[in-house]
Amino acid sequence: MADTTHHASLEALTPDAEQPWQVQTSRELPFEPLLHLDTVRLHGGGHTSYLYRPRGEKASLVVPITPQGEIVLLQQYRYPLRTTLTEVVAGGVEVGETPLEAAHRELREEVGGVSEEWLALPCFCPQPSFTGQIFYPFIALNVRLLDSAPEESELLSVQTVPLAEAYRRLDAGAIPNAPSALTLFHARGELQRRGLL
Amino acid sequence: MADTTHHASLEALTPDAEQPWQVQTSRELPFEPLLHLDTVRLHGGGHTSYLYRPRGEKASLVVPITPQGEIVLLQQYRYPLRTTLTEVVAGGVEVGETPLEAAHRELREEVGGVSEEWLALPCFCPQPSFTGQIFYPFIALNVRLLDSAPEESELLSVQTVPLAEAYRRLDAGAIPNAPSALTLFHARGELQRRGLL
Repeated sequence: MADTTHHASLEALTPDAEQPWQVQTSRELPFEPLLHLDTVRLHGGGHTSYLYRPRGEKASLVVPITPQGEIVLLQQYRYPLRTTLTEVVAGGVEVGETPLEAAHRELREEVGGVSEEWLALPCFCPQPSFTGQIFYPFIALNVRLLDSAPEESELLSVQTVPLAEAYRRLDAGAIPNAPSALTLFHARGELQRRGLL
Repeated sequence: MADTTHHASLEALTPDAEQPWQVQTSRELPFEPLLHLDTVRLHGGGHTSYLYRPRGEKASLVVPITPQGEIVLLQQYRYPLRTTLTEVVAGGVEVGETPLEAAHRELREEVGGVSEEWLALPCFCPQPSFTGQIFYPFIALNVRLLDSAPEESELLSVQTVPLAEAYRRLDAGAIPNAPSALTLFHARGELQRRGLL
């Protein structure tokens, strides 16, 4: 049986020996999240400085579908934007966790959801000009809703809506959180094939 | 006639007087791009520190469609990931520019494209947990290709492909640059309505 919870790898990256830009110096800044400030020799011979989040950090995202075929969405306050956005379940992959394990944990913490049917969607890079992070999206099917336990630094509320309504909002641009919106777009075909949408 | 180049605003954000978290201190870090390191009083009374890119910066993205109904894609080297990704045209909005003006400029610089028919797609936030940036995507129709002039710090090549091929790659997860992929998903309906896809 195919392992539907495995993501096609993004790790077949350019081999180090073939990098077109060469690192001259690299400095870790004393902040959380980790930032690197490098000086880089460009392909044309010039130099630049580059501030970025290095590769290694991962996050998981989850489209939770209930046995009734509805989707569990969040309204979450996002401090950098000073506003509340509609989102899917999401959170960082901790040290020692797989993306699937993080997805299980975040589903339980953020919306109190439990699922045994998971489908991996194509992974993606949230902002390749600035961060080396990779995000791992999933669909979780037949999600049972128990009690949730958000972290102190999470301000969120849960809203279960029909799938057609969620996709109407998506197409109308009412889900401007890009990682959530991209996850929903990648989930659409699979939800249609299963007759859920 | 409707102004098809206008984005629905994301600027109706939570009024400052109603912010659930209160800024205690805010420090600008001496780097480019601009970062803020704040101490914040949370809704539950606790405190946290928050490192983020503040609101204000914008970027524009362009799906360039030729008179033959093909799409112009880029292969661009992305230093934070140390790899080359398939992308649409994109770049920062400079001081004094509108998103549409930046879109015109980036289309010309990156692929040598010129267009007089622009359609705005829903704007989005690339990574709301970390950045207050807002991205403004467009479709440019009937794009004529002249000479291009990438910046010294841009390592890219141009590839014109049939629209159906671009969307086959998108659905297969072969366009992992999230802002590019989301722009393509938002463009799909409009391209279908115009009989281009």
